[in-house]
Amino acid sequence: MAWQNKILRVNLSDHSCVTEPLNRDWAQAYLGQRGLGSKYLAEEVDPTVDPLSPQNKLIIATGPLTATTAPTGGRSSAVTKGALTGAIAASNTGGMFGAELKLAGYDLLIIEGRAASPVYLWIRDDHAELRSAEKLWGRSVWETEPWLRRELGEPQAKIASIGRAGEVGVKFACIVNDIDRAYGRSGVGTVMGSKQLKAIAVRGTRGVRVNDPDAFRRAVLDTMKILQPSPVRKRFTVRGTHNMMDVTNRFGSLPTRNCRDVQFEGVEAINADAVRVRRLSDGKPSLQGNKACFACTIGCGRVATIDPVSPLVNGPDPQGGDRSRYQLPSGGLEYETAFAFGPMCGVDDLDTLNYVNFLSNEQGMDPISLGVSIAAAMELFEENVVTLEDTGGLELRFGNAEALARAAELTAFGEGFGADIGLGADRLCRKYGRPELAMVVKGQEFPGYDPRALKGMALAYATSNRGCCHMRARPLLDDFSNVSTDGKAELVKTTQDLVGAIDSSGTCVFTNVMFPPEHLAQMIDAACEGDWDLERLHTVGERIWNLERRFNLAAGFSKDDDRLPERTTSEPAGAGAGKGQIADLSQMLGEYYRLRGWDADGVPLAETLNRLEL
Amino acid sequence: MAWQNKILRVNLSDHSCVTEPLNRDWAQAYLGQRGLGSKYLAEEVDPTVDPLSPQNKLIIATGPLTATTAPTGGRSSAVTKGALTGAIAASNTGGMFGAELKLAGYDLLIIEGRAASPVYLWIRDDHAELRSAEKLWGRSVWETEPWLRRELGEPQAKIASIGRAGEVGVKFACIVNDIDRAYGRSGVGTVMGSKQLKAIAVRGTRGVRVNDPDAFRRAVLDTMKILQPSPVRKRFTVRGTHNMMDVTNRFGSLPTRNCRDVQFEGVEAINADAVRVRRLSDGKPSLQGNKACFACTIGCGRVATIDPVSPLVNGPDPQGGDRSRYQLPSGGLEYETAFAFGPMCGVDDLDTLNYVNFLSNEQGMDPISLGVSIAAAMELFEENVVTLEDTGGLELRFGNAEALARAAELTAFGEGFGADIGLGADRLCRKYGRPELAMVVKGQEFPGYDPRALKGMALAYATSNRGCCHMRARPLLDDFSNVSTDGKAELVKTTQDLVGAIDSSGTCVFTNVMFPPEHLAQMIDAACEGDWDLERLHTVGERIWNLERRFNLAAGFSKDDDRLPERTTSEPAGAGAGKGQIADLSQMLGEYYRLRGWDADGVPLAETLNRLEL
Repeated sequence: MAWQNKILRVNLSDHSCVTEPLNRDWAQAYLGQRGLGSKYLAEEVDPTVDPLSPQNKLIIATGPLTATTAPTGGRSSAVTKGALTGAIAASNTGGMFGAELKLAGYDLLIIEGRAASPVYLWIRDDHAELRSAEKLWGRSVWETEPWLRRELGEPQAKIASIGRAGEVGVKFACIVNDIDRAYGRSGVGTVMGSKQLKAIAVRGTRGVRVNDPDAFRRAVLDTMKILQPSPVRKRFTVRGTHNMMDVTNRFGSLPTRNCRDVQFEGVEAINADAVRVRRLSDGKPSLQGNKACFACTIGCGRVATIDPVSPLVNGPDPQGGDRSRYQLPSGGLEYETAFAFGPMCGVDDLDTLNYVNFLSNEQGMDPISLGVSIAAAMELFEENVVTLEDTGGLELRFGNAEALARAAELTAFGEGFGADIGLGADRLCRKYGRPELAMVVKGQEFPGYDPRALKGMALAYATSNRGCCHMRARPLLDDFSNVSTDGKAELVKTTQDLVGAIDSSGTCVFTNVMFPPEHLAQMIDAACEGDWDLERLHTVGERIWNLERRFNLAAGFSKDDDRLPERTTSEPAGAGAGKGQIADLSQMLGEYYRLRGWDADGVPLAETLNRLEL
Repeated sequence: MAWQNKILRVNLSDHSCVTEPLNRDWAQAYLGQRGLGSKYLAEEVDPTVDPLSPQNKLIIATGPLTATTAPTGGRSSAVTKGALTGAIAASNTGGMFGAELKLAGYDLLIIEGRAASPVYLWIRDDHAELRSAEKLWGRSVWETEPWLRRELGEPQAKIASIGRAGEVGVKFACIVNDIDRAYGRSGVGTVMGSKQLKAIAVRGTRGVRVNDPDAFRRAVLDTMKILQPSPVRKRFTVRGTHNMMDVTNRFGSLPTRNCRDVQFEGVEAINADAVRVRRLSDGKPSLQGNKACFACTIGCGRVATIDPVSPLVNGPDPQGGDRSRYQLPSGGLEYETAFAFGPMCGVDDLDTLNYVNFLSNEQGMDPISLGVSIAAAMELFEENVVTLEDTGGLELRFGNAEALARAAELTAFGEGFGADIGLGADRLCRKYGRPELAMVVKGQEFPGYDPRALKGMALAYATSNRGCCHMRARPLLDDFSNVSTDGKAELVKTTQDLVGAIDSSGTCVFTNVMFPPEHLAQMIDAACEGDWDLERLHTVGERIWNLERRFNLAAGFSKDDDRLPERTTSEPAGAGAGKGQIADLSQMLGEYYRLRGWDADGVPLAETLNRLEL
């Protein structure tokens, strides 16, 4: 129950689509989504494999609560060895796609091999087939989705696809679904592109059955009673994630100009309030409203449109394509997109931020990695390491909005200097001999939280198994109140485990600041076979964390990769709550390893693996 | 069940102590503590009465969860017409005293009339009597408690008493229990002093029965499972409330120098970290640890000692008394005490802050009102309105630690200029013709949150029924993330209602940031007759709020009293998140009245009163 107990395995090399029963023991041990997908990946893929080789697999995994009425029950994960990082990757999306896949009858979709020429996958309940995508190759996500619905005659089909970025091998290409949601980080779209899989279209008309419908209904209602009145929920609904920008700026943890600074003087031109009051040239508001993913009552997503007379939109499409889609409302700026294109690049032009955000969705790029990679390029340029010759005449300075927009376009299409930016910040800075200018951990770019003032986040960044991440642990609330390393190791460890369970359930990690995790346990307990309580969820999360860690250790990572960029560990923050402070992991990391039951090299002890039945 | 169904009514004028059954209908409508005490007060006391007349009553009220195993189930309230404000007052304490009163078999203790000469009340289970306190009058709280235990031969007796401040009529005298806990605000100790009641000693050896013991045990365990792992709980345990000082200072909401400023340059000398590392002259740490109230697993209280060679402690006792108690560990600085004596007075000397904090507990003064009244006096002095002649030679300037200590001593004993400070900031500033310099609402002094940056707190201050208060609503978390007035009226209204229920339950309002209120509803539902859910708790809270409002309106308050000091509404904050902003109530207040079901004058509509069965 809750699980569909069926997997669809698609081999692109021999064009086979076969189903198999779900391994129920694994589902009991790993739930679904990130956990269960990672278990299958770890069992089936050699950790040392080249991420872009046919031997890597791409797993789309739903959770037991996906497509149920559990609040935010619309999540799914893309699990693979990440093209950006070489580490195990699990990128999580909302929207409608994952629920549709579950409603078609599948818990997991395992994609293997590589197609000889571009294909797309079409799933309609039991029916699954690979079809030629020759006509789609070269098209954006925003062209692909309507094209496929017309081609299939299925206006209700939900689609996940790659844009140009995934085709041309941008290392941080993402898989976009439902126009503006994405399996975002670590280059999961790059892996999909390497397999010549352009898109997955799915129509599901089945239901999902839960184990004890009455208990499940009660558990959902009990949860809603807490979720709906929550002021945090309301803030997310009314102001979106972008609200965070004022908070981090004030606190001095807003990464600015490639982390040279921790506060941005231009914040008022691009923050949530600026977005709210923005009018287009025709007098209509730029911000159209908010929207929610499947089964979500939070609706943190923004819907925006950008000025139809903007030269960015009205200028020639770099690929000669149709830009009319730009004039329709679409996913607006979130905190992370706004931070990455704004403060991190020193740019305070809202139109440009909106445009580059749209472009990221249209062409399938992780906006965090894109913005941070451009920021690194800007610093290389300002340091005269990258020259006008390299950039093809682009004045790639901090604050240059036009250069930001053009660099993003070049990156999406793999053209000119954009091919270098598309390597990601780490490879880019290494190529130009200045590796220390890449704001990355394990090859993945920083999100919008400078770790010098945020002590727990510093540890969370350093230890995240998928490379730098702000979502793999939840120390933030404590960090804003407690600028010391006290208790952070335990907090990071505990919330990493909890997030592992949430990420494997089919629900959204934002819920963890809106209702207590016991409610998730109650919903899972009612939905699934077996007895589920919070303690078991923590054990599942810990098991997942150690499984991911073992994958990475086997892939060649070591404790030396649990570190932060030199800038944050040697150059003190110049302002804010962390003024004069660096990010110092020395004490926290040892305590964290001990709490994890790992040895001094960060390797899980045998007793830890035994305890977790690994 | 949960209630003891018995009231002890003590008439000081005729020395009678009689019991009567609890009004069970009222208990079902108002729970206990603040709510139930207010209902009795409103029924029995004319709102226009002089608070210091025999016609005023002082009600000590426990809640249904007081003295149970519910987490933080040790709270009780002192309800009266406040001497400081003339408004309905309900001051809430922890420690052990309230639970002991409940264990003696009483839900409420109603004290009436006035004794002809000083008395104390001794309760041992069913036995209650008034005894002469002639020997105690003039003694501090710290002398009174051990003296009474010896006198009574009851080392386990729990005691609530007033110090010198309550005797001499300091308007913000409090009732101190268990050495360093207090019914703190609004001059409830002044009322007690006016009745010539020096102390209440109680020994209770009975139990408390809950309605469904198994369900109650489960509800408590379920709550503990959420409370214990909560990072907020841990932060309160490890760092105490004082942790807040860094947060408000960074945010620019730390009232400084009588609200001239919103950030304090000396904060690092007196914040939680400064307290933690402080060593005494003998090398031992000043901070001894933390401590908890009855049934509390948070333990936010600090235990500290101050330097035995400090001239403050070793100097002559202003009253010639015994100061050896100063060398024993006692309640240390909390955020509110530290803010009021520190930034608000511009003082950054930790020893002095500790001393004045000890003095407040020893002599029974509300430290918030004391500090803010001294800050007002300092500004009057700096403005040359109060002169050296007025102060008896005291250089009462911002930042003068010695003057702060001496002014506090003079206030406690009602001597010299201290008699003026003991009027409270409002009457003091009026006396000297500068009413605008009093940082008060409804006559009660500001807590440690400047309302210019904190929009919800501004509304909470203005509308609090007991005068300015940071505990009557909980907008803070939202305020720190959302510096706009959006949604604040609803948030303030909703949390005021919720806090009303928590304050009437026997548990601590801090729990509301550590577990969701459904858990409180579950515990009450298991403990008490009747069906209790969160919706009903909100209704109870709303009923209490409107009852308090009606009392105040009848006492002569009007919508014109729902306002903030002119400084905060006309002088923009100079720094921080509210830089350039004032506290602007205009829009929020109207919305708040509407949400409350009040007319444009802030008077509850008939339909609102009917709905709430008032």
